[in-house]
Amino acid sequence: MSNFQIIENSPEWWSIYERVNTISPIPKEVWAQSKIEYCLRELSYGDFLVKQGKIPTKYAFVFSGVLREYYLTPDGDEYIKSFNFPGEFTGSYFDLLSKQPSTCNIRAITDCKLAVADFEDLSSLFETHIAWERLGRKVAENLFLKKARREYELLALDAEARYNILKETYPNIEDLVPQYHIASYLGITPVSLSRIRSKSGKLKKESND
Amino acid sequence: MSNFQIIENSPEWWSIYERVNTISPIPKEVWAQSKIEYCLRELSYGDFLVKQGKIPTKYAFVFSGVLREYYLTPDGDEYIKSFNFPGEFTGSYFDLLSKQPSTCNIRAITDCKLAVADFEDLSSLFETHIAWERLGRKVAENLFLKKARREYELLALDAEARYNILKETYPNIEDLVPQYHIASYLGITPVSLSRIRSKSGKLKKESND
Repeated sequence: MSNFQIIENSPEWWSIYERVNTISPIPKEVWAQSKIEYCLRELSYGDFLVKQGKIPTKYAFVFSGVLREYYLTPDGDEYIKSFNFPGEFTGSYFDLLSKQPSTCNIRAITDCKLAVADFEDLSSLFETHIAWERLGRKVAENLFLKKARREYELLALDAEARYNILKETYPNIEDLVPQYHIASYLGITPVSLSRIRSKSGKLKKESND
Repeated sequence: MSNFQIIENSPEWWSIYERVNTISPIPKEVWAQSKIEYCLRELSYGDFLVKQGKIPTKYAFVFSGVLREYYLTPDGDEYIKSFNFPGEFTGSYFDLLSKQPSTCNIRAITDCKLAVADFEDLSSLFETHIAWERLGRKVAENLFLKKARREYELLALDAEARYNILKETYPNIEDLVPQYHIASYLGITPVSLSRIRSKSGKLKKESND
């Protein structure tokens, strides 16, 4: 696992800035003054970014690879909260905000390249400039919208509808994520998922015929 | 349904300000300049504050009474997202942010007294002062934390554990909200809830003996 600082004005540094700007614009001079230290970190399949039970302090930007965010129950059951793809931020915002031992694990499903930074450094910026406050608001609003949609799916939709939404959101998810992880995210067994997939494949074939 | 403006510097006006301050402080002079028009509205049991399918524009502060926020599925099933009690804001932030037809209903469970205002007026303040941006961030963060906790409960906890958390959060909820609404919030049938309640009552009695 390599771990060295991302140099100011490097392509990686600017790619994080560009992504941040799509969430909420930060003036270039404000960004340059931010002094957040991003470190490049490589994870191999199975490596942890965040461990359940430990107080998390870091957030990360995904350059490449896929991670999964999941709870492990006392009985050893795994519940997948979300997947993280390239161009996304990760780090369990819930746990970073609550400052309690992490309620979840974040772990590499494939080899990953990430930029990792201290959440404390980011949150201390909120008070320094309205653009940082706005970014904080937009990030929280987006996460809230995502969670509210997920609640709706879990409460009001059946597994097949949830599967169809997942496929619409991430059309190539099945090439990147093993079926048993997708089943866990949908809250169903791998057997049920296989049944839904074969039904959906059949319907697709019929509509193409 | 009465509907008249809450006068600046009235006790109701200050009680909204005090509640806002517990979320994130707004300097008094900034609050006084905000020019948000709050109208007093009374709802009777069964009245709607927000109707599913209509684009919502209003948020509200609850002075008294209880409301429920729920989805109605095409089959006519009702899924309760949350309850709103005195001292809380309501209005389905999800739908206000997304500016789409509302995904839920908000409806009075008891007679209610509310202060109602335009969300547009509030959100236009975000850019005018860092204190408003911060309030927006805190509101979104709190809602995100609430939703993330709810997701955890729905995915990882059984109905009994979910019931116990609800009772801890709102000890007197059973005096205010009918059992079938509580069952819907927990995602179980009223019969299952009744079983859980009698088990929990029995355990309490045993530990007191």
